[in-house]
Amino acid sequence: MKPRHSESKGSRREPRASSEDTTPGDPKAASERGQSDLQPDRILESAPGCGTSRGFVWFVGAGPGDPGLITLRGAQLLRTADVVLHDALIHSAILDEVTGRRIDVGKRCGHHSMRQEKISALLADLAGQDQRIVRLKGGDSGVLGRVAEEALLLTERGIPFEIVPGVSSATAAPSAAGIPLTHRGLADSFVVATAHRRADRRDAGRDFSIPTYSACTTVVLLMASASVGDWSEQLLQSGYPANLPVALISAGCTELERVVETRVARVEDDLRRAGLQTPMLAVVGWVVTLRGQLAGGLARFSPDQNEGRDGVRGAPDRVPAKLEKSRRGGACFRSAS
Amino acid sequence: MKPRHSESKGSRREPRASSEDTTPGDPKAASERGQSDLQPDRILESAPGCGTSRGFVWFVGAGPGDPGLITLRGAQLLRTADVVLHDALIHSAILDEVTGRRIDVGKRCGHHSMRQEKISALLADLAGQDQRIVRLKGGDSGVLGRVAEEALLLTERGIPFEIVPGVSSATAAPSAAGIPLTHRGLADSFVVATAHRRADRRDAGRDFSIPTYSACTTVVLLMASASVGDWSEQLLQSGYPANLPVALISAGCTELERVVETRVARVEDDLRRAGLQTPMLAVVGWVVTLRGQLAGGLARFSPDQNEGRDGVRGAPDRVPAKLEKSRRGGACFRSAS
Repeated sequence: MKPRHSESKGSRREPRASSEDTTPGDPKAASERGQSDLQPDRILESAPGCGTSRGFVWFVGAGPGDPGLITLRGAQLLRTADVVLHDALIHSAILDEVTGRRIDVGKRCGHHSMRQEKISALLADLAGQDQRIVRLKGGDSGVLGRVAEEALLLTERGIPFEIVPGVSSATAAPSAAGIPLTHRGLADSFVVATAHRRADRRDAGRDFSIPTYSACTTVVLLMASASVGDWSEQLLQSGYPANLPVALISAGCTELERVVETRVARVEDDLRRAGLQTPMLAVVGWVVTLRGQLAGGLARFSPDQNEGRDGVRGAPDRVPAKLEKSRRGGACFRSAS
Repeated sequence: MKPRHSESKGSRREPRASSEDTTPGDPKAASERGQSDLQPDRILESAPGCGTSRGFVWFVGAGPGDPGLITLRGAQLLRTADVVLHDALIHSAILDEVTGRRIDVGKRCGHHSMRQEKISALLADLAGQDQRIVRLKGGDSGVLGRVAEEALLLTERGIPFEIVPGVSSATAAPSAAGIPLTHRGLADSFVVATAHRRADRRDAGRDFSIPTYSACTTVVLLMASASVGDWSEQLLQSGYPANLPVALISAGCTELERVVETRVARVEDDLRRAGLQTPMLAVVGWVVTLRGQLAGGLARFSPDQNEGRDGVRGAPDRVPAKLEKSRRGGACFRSAS
């Protein structure tokens, strides 16, 4: 597979054959992009690190779902890398930016995730073959992204890398839904923790990392769906008031976003009743009340939710067709009605 | 002042005269951008919301400093808004993207910040005049960005708005410096709090929001410079080990980044000795040890720090001159040697 674009830097090489499952870039999508491929961005006009003589890995955070929430630098690196190793749940419009080879390490044969050790080894092996690699992770790589596990092996092998921060769903999904994590008089700090219980933890009897209740701290729990009964019980045991507001946000920052507002004591029942899908996070704290106060002004992602509000709906012209068709949604795009 | 670009949507209006201090867009910078102004991005091809009949406000997070760390959507909104109200400390390369009017609400006459109430009122007044406004804040608006204070007034006045998440310096600066906030076996959660003591707090005797020590939780303290003696003392009083690692990160995600690694008991002395400048944040926890483990592979922002590492330095070609000259730095650009 040849690099598709003549503006690619001189150091671009032919990716070597590999026995790994690969998802080649979609030539149709590339041709739809047409001339705009050849235009530099205005802020970022070159990918740093290009033109050197060795393999290199950029850890890039893809953001929380909406393809518009990847950074300029992240998007540009996708266009210059020889290979992109990506997680599952990356928006197709983001993957369409990849001009080199794509390797999906989030799913293997559609069933199992590739083991972490194998991903790290693949990354190091490809970099050892002088490939310029983007390791694309959902959200921000520094937040529960296990970036250091991969980076430690690169360091051992003498392969240079850089961590390019992204927008974390932990902060983005609440904000976009009208729940800033801090607000004067309501919260001046926040905690982010995973509510996903791994098998090894359960065996060891370890609890979730839920801090003692503080009225001025917002708690964000990621991967909060499966273990809802456990963490809501632990909140009560840790001194959180039964009537403390909770927002459950499913598919935040996408057109499929759904938000359920509830209270600590009712969270399990209300989640079951609403039948929210994963990915889902929970925001626990008084800042959740802001959402109701802001409801009159907050423009929502879903076109339905904008019906009837004069002047809020966006004009649909020039929204890329591939975004409108996408199952995971164009997110911040308020699409045609 | 006329909108500069003929591709602007039909709803663009002439900004009305105002008595506020304004910083008009720089015509020279605009002409340097030349033809690329007319090229759509490939992922985001239109600004949603354009073409409607009323004022609208987008709260946009500008990211942590590096102009490459604004989102695609944020950058595009800057190019379509009638007016951009921005905070201080926004990179000049980001402000150069603004095609409409710019109003600096971070500094007034170079001395005082505009009062929050006045910013909110200005925002609402402009939107009431049918202006399409971007309210540009550093980092992510939902993290200590006081976005709800401004959004509540818009809601009262019936003005629609949207919150466009950005990259928060709280997560980005540590990650980029080689300190992911979570790592298996070291931390599975993190806390973000401000270490800035306001006058009203000091009077009320309120402490910083520092949680009780947990070995598996990383603590990030923003605005940590001035109050270092107070918060380090409070960490010790809250059960944090005297030898718990602390990283002090100044000007994270810029070329001026400096990092000092220390321990809780020595943090005040080491900060004074190093003389770090603001903005500075502190990362407290065992994940700080990752930085040393990753040092062999981590590519650094500053060109000096890349000296001697074969193959790491980036080629300087096509890095925009305005970024190289900028005082706050081109950040992730490893510039010419």
